[in-house]
Amino acid sequence: MKDESDFINALRRRVNGETWTGQQGDVEIPRRPVTTSLVAGIGDDAAVFRSNAGKDTVITADLLVEDIDFRRTTTPPYLLGHKALAVSLSDIAAMGARPLWSIISIGVPEEVWQTDFVERLYDGVLDLANRYGVQLIGGDTSRTPESIVIDSIVSGECSTGTSVMRSGAAPGDQIFVTGSLGGAAAGLRLIERGAHLAEQNLGDDDSQKLDHILLRQLRPDPRVGWGIVLGEEHLATSMIDLSDGISSDLNRLCSASGVGAMIDSSLLPIDERVTELCGRRALDPLQLALHGGEDFELLFTVKPDDASRLPRRVDGVGIKSIGQITAAFEGVKISEGSRIWELKSGGWKHF
Amino acid sequence: MKDESDFINALRRRVNGETWTGQQGDVEIPRRPVTTSLVAGIGDDAAVFRSNAGKDTVITADLLVEDIDFRRTTTPPYLLGHKALAVSLSDIAAMGARPLWSIISIGVPEEVWQTDFVERLYDGVLDLANRYGVQLIGGDTSRTPESIVIDSIVSGECSTGTSVMRSGAAPGDQIFVTGSLGGAAAGLRLIERGAHLAEQNLGDDDSQKLDHILLRQLRPDPRVGWGIVLGEEHLATSMIDLSDGISSDLNRLCSASGVGAMIDSSLLPIDERVTELCGRRALDPLQLALHGGEDFELLFTVKPDDASRLPRRVDGVGIKSIGQITAAFEGVKISEGSRIWELKSGGWKHF
Repeated sequence: MKDESDFINALRRRVNGETWTGQQGDVEIPRRPVTTSLVAGIGDDAAVFRSNAGKDTVITADLLVEDIDFRRTTTPPYLLGHKALAVSLSDIAAMGARPLWSIISIGVPEEVWQTDFVERLYDGVLDLANRYGVQLIGGDTSRTPESIVIDSIVSGECSTGTSVMRSGAAPGDQIFVTGSLGGAAAGLRLIERGAHLAEQNLGDDDSQKLDHILLRQLRPDPRVGWGIVLGEEHLATSMIDLSDGISSDLNRLCSASGVGAMIDSSLLPIDERVTELCGRRALDPLQLALHGGEDFELLFTVKPDDASRLPRRVDGVGIKSIGQITAAFEGVKISEGSRIWELKSGGWKHF
Repeated sequence: MKDESDFINALRRRVNGETWTGQQGDVEIPRRPVTTSLVAGIGDDAAVFRSNAGKDTVITADLLVEDIDFRRTTTPPYLLGHKALAVSLSDIAAMGARPLWSIISIGVPEEVWQTDFVERLYDGVLDLANRYGVQLIGGDTSRTPESIVIDSIVSGECSTGTSVMRSGAAPGDQIFVTGSLGGAAAGLRLIERGAHLAEQNLGDDDSQKLDHILLRQLRPDPRVGWGIVLGEEHLATSMIDLSDGISSDLNRLCSASGVGAMIDSSLLPIDERVTELCGRRALDPLQLALHGGEDFELLFTVKPDDASRLPRRVDGVGIKSIGQITAAFEGVKISEGSRIWELKSGGWKHF
């Protein structure tokens, strides 16, 4: 079985190690040698390169494919546009950068092109872009035989050298997470069981809670403000966005940093509406919070001395300290009361 | 029937006219207003915006979809990677800019992922990127249900205000085209009839000519050097790359500039191997040169006084003067001996 991360790593080594092989021949235009300004290439949440004096440019790309990343029947086009941009904004936030512009390309089958699907999708893109002052500067529209595909590129910038990598965590750093966990995965499970957004909000408490959870899946809010603060104020030593769940993403961060971690399950900010609604539907909120993807919260580490400088809320979103970074040999672990488990990507394993 | 250019125009108006609608609410991070630095947005070969002091940034996106833009059975992955990057490099060249970096995202079905298809594709991307000192800075790989999709983003830069738009042509300007015409369309017709690249080159003249034409379709050479020269030396008043054929692309350029044009069919640099091979296969070389797409040559206009400053060859590729810009009311026309026809997009109409 071919592994995507192996492929990405091989490509990264190849690109970074690439030597200049261009031929001059009868060329009159001098070729530039491959620039050495790339700070972080393929493999982090986004690529970083040094472009202007005093600024680093950060760029990310996310390809969304129908029936792999979303279903046409359960995703209104406006929310799909929102989400396509949101996932890339989340990558930029995870680098501690401020988003500036976006390119959204879309391919749709002929029958979709003939509807207002594409317009509604760009409505969703533009509303979210405007919320953060991000400029949509271009894109390509194309026909596809069957599936809808969207490629979302976002570029941002940060002061030179302030981009936050996955690799900067050190033992003793505190681990924080923004917002709440488990909502997006719970929303996905409920949608798969037939739940949908209320056509009209009937005002009853339960349908509001349901909508809240469904929207955590369908309309993720990227933590743009937190990303900017944590980068500009040099607060985060490392950061990643939670696209695949804490168990996978914390392991990625620890692997990139060469460290271990210990988190406390009782400190995880599980969305209380998830706890309430899922309890009745035999879904385990802790499993959803740990292994469920697409919350698009930020997971970051902070030096103990800097913790007091953290703002309590940014854009109305709080943070929670959930544990601390340890030495690599201690592994990535989670405590539940007096018990301690190894936290494996996508599932946890009892001793 | 919904028209793509109408959609693009509507989106462009919307994006350019967009007013700032972001809400502050309890937000602590100041939102940037939509920047006013966009020089040319959606609608030209690429978007241009003012980023650094003294430099404009140019960005383009091209989405390639299997069975719409290419066929898996007739396109080796190495050449597909080459072409995916080449079409975007051609857009950057058409803006008179120098390409700097690229992001190539690809989605493939599971059975393709398990082969070396993706590696071979990136081989093609990287070899072409290295030829022009372009850095591959990232991309996303994803699974698709059935079709291969590739999104190719290239960014370049030029000195402030020197990007070459489609809209700058004025009556009296001379019209030039780089390289030769008709090869890519001839290659496509021949591939559709079953022709393929020689496994081993047998050294006979005919198979070399055939390969040359097939490679015009399968391995287009973007005119990167010409783009840089024409932009930096302020030589071109307007420019477009020939992705859809002169008849369509000259009409686009004239429409954007608000001018007419008169070109002389006898001056068109039709690839001589096209003339020779197609004559035997009942294909009309002039039709292929005028209406056939994907030659990826540059079509540009030059003030009469500047024509003498044009280099004869850049990177071994020459140029040909094919006519001149006229007033809008004179229309877009082509002369053939003493006869003059209206040159319509995609086909020409007798009076």
